[in-house]
Amino acid sequence: MNYRSILKIQGLLLVILSIAMLFPLAFSLYYGSNDTNELLAGIAISLVTGVVFLLSFKSKEPLRPREGFVIVTTGWILASLFGALPFYFHEAFGGNFINCVFETMSGFTTTGATILTDIESLPKGLLFWRSLTHWLGGMGIILLAIALLPILGLSSTQMFRAEVPGPTMDKISPKIKDTAKILWMIYIGMTVLETTLLMFGGMDLFTALSHTFGTLATGGFSTLNGSIAGFNNVYIEIVIMFFMYLAGINFVLHFHLIRGNFSNFFSNREWRFYTIILLLAITAITLNIHFTDYTDTQLADHPMLSIYKENIGTCIRYASFQVISITTTTGFVSTNFEVWPAFSKILLVLLMFIGGSAGSTGGGIKQIRIMIILKFIKNEIKKLTYPRAFFSLKIGDQSIQEYVVRNVIAFFLIFMFLFAGITLFLTFMGYDIVTSFSATIATLGNIGPGLARVGAVENYAFFDPISKIVLIFSMLLGRLELYSVLILFYTLFYTKRLFGKMKR
Amino acid sequence: MNYRSILKIQGLLLVILSIAMLFPLAFSLYYGSNDTNELLAGIAISLVTGVVFLLSFKSKEPLRPREGFVIVTTGWILASLFGALPFYFHEAFGGNFINCVFETMSGFTTTGATILTDIESLPKGLLFWRSLTHWLGGMGIILLAIALLPILGLSSTQMFRAEVPGPTMDKISPKIKDTAKILWMIYIGMTVLETTLLMFGGMDLFTALSHTFGTLATGGFSTLNGSIAGFNNVYIEIVIMFFMYLAGINFVLHFHLIRGNFSNFFSNREWRFYTIILLLAITAITLNIHFTDYTDTQLADHPMLSIYKENIGTCIRYASFQVISITTTTGFVSTNFEVWPAFSKILLVLLMFIGGSAGSTGGGIKQIRIMIILKFIKNEIKKLTYPRAFFSLKIGDQSIQEYVVRNVIAFFLIFMFLFAGITLFLTFMGYDIVTSFSATIATLGNIGPGLARVGAVENYAFFDPISKIVLIFSMLLGRLELYSVLILFYTLFYTKRLFGKMKR
Repeated sequence: MNYRSILKIQGLLLVILSIAMLFPLAFSLYYGSNDTNELLAGIAISLVTGVVFLLSFKSKEPLRPREGFVIVTTGWILASLFGALPFYFHEAFGGNFINCVFETMSGFTTTGATILTDIESLPKGLLFWRSLTHWLGGMGIILLAIALLPILGLSSTQMFRAEVPGPTMDKISPKIKDTAKILWMIYIGMTVLETTLLMFGGMDLFTALSHTFGTLATGGFSTLNGSIAGFNNVYIEIVIMFFMYLAGINFVLHFHLIRGNFSNFFSNREWRFYTIILLLAITAITLNIHFTDYTDTQLADHPMLSIYKENIGTCIRYASFQVISITTTTGFVSTNFEVWPAFSKILLVLLMFIGGSAGSTGGGIKQIRIMIILKFIKNEIKKLTYPRAFFSLKIGDQSIQEYVVRNVIAFFLIFMFLFAGITLFLTFMGYDIVTSFSATIATLGNIGPGLARVGAVENYAFFDPISKIVLIFSMLLGRLELYSVLILFYTLFYTKRLFGKMKR
Repeated sequence: MNYRSILKIQGLLLVILSIAMLFPLAFSLYYGSNDTNELLAGIAISLVTGVVFLLSFKSKEPLRPREGFVIVTTGWILASLFGALPFYFHEAFGGNFINCVFETMSGFTTTGATILTDIESLPKGLLFWRSLTHWLGGMGIILLAIALLPILGLSSTQMFRAEVPGPTMDKISPKIKDTAKILWMIYIGMTVLETTLLMFGGMDLFTALSHTFGTLATGGFSTLNGSIAGFNNVYIEIVIMFFMYLAGINFVLHFHLIRGNFSNFFSNREWRFYTIILLLAITAITLNIHFTDYTDTQLADHPMLSIYKENIGTCIRYASFQVISITTTTGFVSTNFEVWPAFSKILLVLLMFIGGSAGSTGGGIKQIRIMIILKFIKNEIKKLTYPRAFFSLKIGDQSIQEYVVRNVIAFFLIFMFLFAGITLFLTFMGYDIVTSFSATIATLGNIGPGLARVGAVENYAFFDPISKIVLIFSMLLGRLELYSVLILFYTLFYTKRLFGKMKR
């Protein structure tokens, strides 16, 4: 393992982190909020540590793929530890470091699960830093998707190649670095656009930027205790809904859209699947919340339920926002879906598993993986009826290679086993069944809110410290597509064997 | 499709069914219970229909594998329809045919889920018929496992070949028919042994036989409202526990045991895995129910909980019985595990997914499939660290062929998707989340009891007719290892295309 190179890169990361903290510092100074010193301390520590790392370690050895996984995983952990410092220094977090790391990891992984019980009491600088971690995390994921994940055989560029006939990514730009630049420009452009549109809706720059970060990174942190429901503004809901929808699409497709290659966009199978899933789920939940007879339920007196019954327009409004928010794994809340019937809630949980598109900022298993798995199942059933026939696995016109299929299946299986394992652990710590399984998928899928005690209007403050650490790793596992984290642990666990084999 | 041959075989099945009904008839006459006419009517209709089928259809065409699947699926459905007749004619079922079919399908699939609210009020003849459906179903599954499932690449004989070094099944007996006979002899021998042991414990022949049927088929129907808890007898619990454990093991291994090939038995990897899983789960649940602080829970006043806290012996007693009962997918209940902490309940649910061994009468996904999936995941992670290396999938010393691995994975994936789909459907019908997902796995895994409204001391009577029909198919899908049922529907759906292709 090339430790020197790894640490040097982490140094660079910490320097970037300290520079990023200048933005919340600016808001802190502008609003004169009481978090200036805390942010300055965070900047200083990150900067000094970063510079020390940069100067101390020198290595000219090239990096191997295995080391790439290690860099990404440790990088995300370091960013969360150092990013948590401004929170830790401030009295609002009561010196609870695990809570601070939870909040920061939730930010960087674009989960949006919070341990804050009163978000609005936080000073503006820290609130902005909290939202900015989303935006940085989302940017990191796009970089990851195009630069590192080709090894998994399912990167955005590869999917892009498989999907779009005609000019390929390689023709646009031969270097990964340039590709990354293009996609970042799109990301920044969308940020400017959404912020402007939200300001038209009456938000100030601070609020508009914060919610834009939460939207485009499919994060879900709001600066209001009531999340998007706090605005109760249809225009704002539509703007956020539209950009959540865009953020859940492969960013390479946005590039096509900008270049005017509409057919490349609209012929993309994953985009079609994603859009159909959304439309079906919105229809199902709209009908379910409108037509359910709540008379005999525990919540029969809840004021929201009579509104659902009387006005189908309201049902469409809340169903569409919540379905898009959950499927893209954003986790913004425009209504307390905890009072919805069990069907709507379980459908939302299933959407959490599916998640966004590959190459988007969304989490979950990803739409393309579900598509490949469904085709795989179909082929296996066909094979039983025609044992001697050969069926290739195709998405659209393109065959998916055998090793990609194996990798997708392994991902799905690991995801399910981790889901079962973490759920079991949370019940072991004494939490009820629905809270445990929904907190697990809400963190592993990087959504944020779940059901019951982690429901739409609840938070993660009540969890004990050990459960919080497990949930922190759950967020990290989900965000780094499992493998990066698992490979790190596998490598650490088998270090001796590994070194033994490397020497051969 | 060779419909004539298929119908002829169904005729034979109905004749066998009518003969089987003579046993409950004997008990009905002996006890003078008020179900003699109902049983006679059932016998007459099954016999006449069977003979008509046998005489009407003649075909000398050989059967193809695809037709084997159709025979098995339609056979199980026909047996459940005709087997339900004695129930339907009797006033105890109030002329509710869906309830009667539910109960019979639950019997034949060895699920043990009941729609009866007062089991003890049923006349002896019908009670015996109910338990006998378990025993016949269990026998059918053993036949299925060795005669039909080799096509799936994971039959008991194939596993046997892959697992046991030295003499193979082929050497013992070259014909499937003879193999089936040997395994049936073991099944009958175990029936005699358990019945005798239960009678030593104070049961009469009727009760002993009924519970033996429920045990060896891993069914779970009891003749008592309180299931095994109704006896409150440690000796009876130990006998039933021991035979449930045996019923969850591949029956081919029992053959080795009887022949004195102890090393073949004890070196079997699936048996080891199965036993370790059981021991781990028993330990975990024992500790969990003993050490949990129930003070602040809703059930704090439940008398059972203070007993758990005071006496660890009682915890071991109930934990071991319930873990073995659930893992083998029997579903006998010796204590109301609904009052257990969430961890123990979720662990039981996970054990429902795992299920018994291949070639046993148990349901669920099966131990060997879980083993293969775990190895597959391990190999895929290894591949990411050593991209150019080749890792073969081995269980013990034997490599598992690629097509078997694919089949196992497809099975797991279909199982999970069906689980999600049926759960979603039940919530759509208005049932709560925990009831819905536990009723789904309890039927799909052929266990019987689940959690919440289908919990340990509850029943399935409250479900609406449509949900009951879905649950009937859930039991059938689980029992016939999904494929048989899916292929039937796939074939029916694509009949035209199928015939088109067959003509080529």
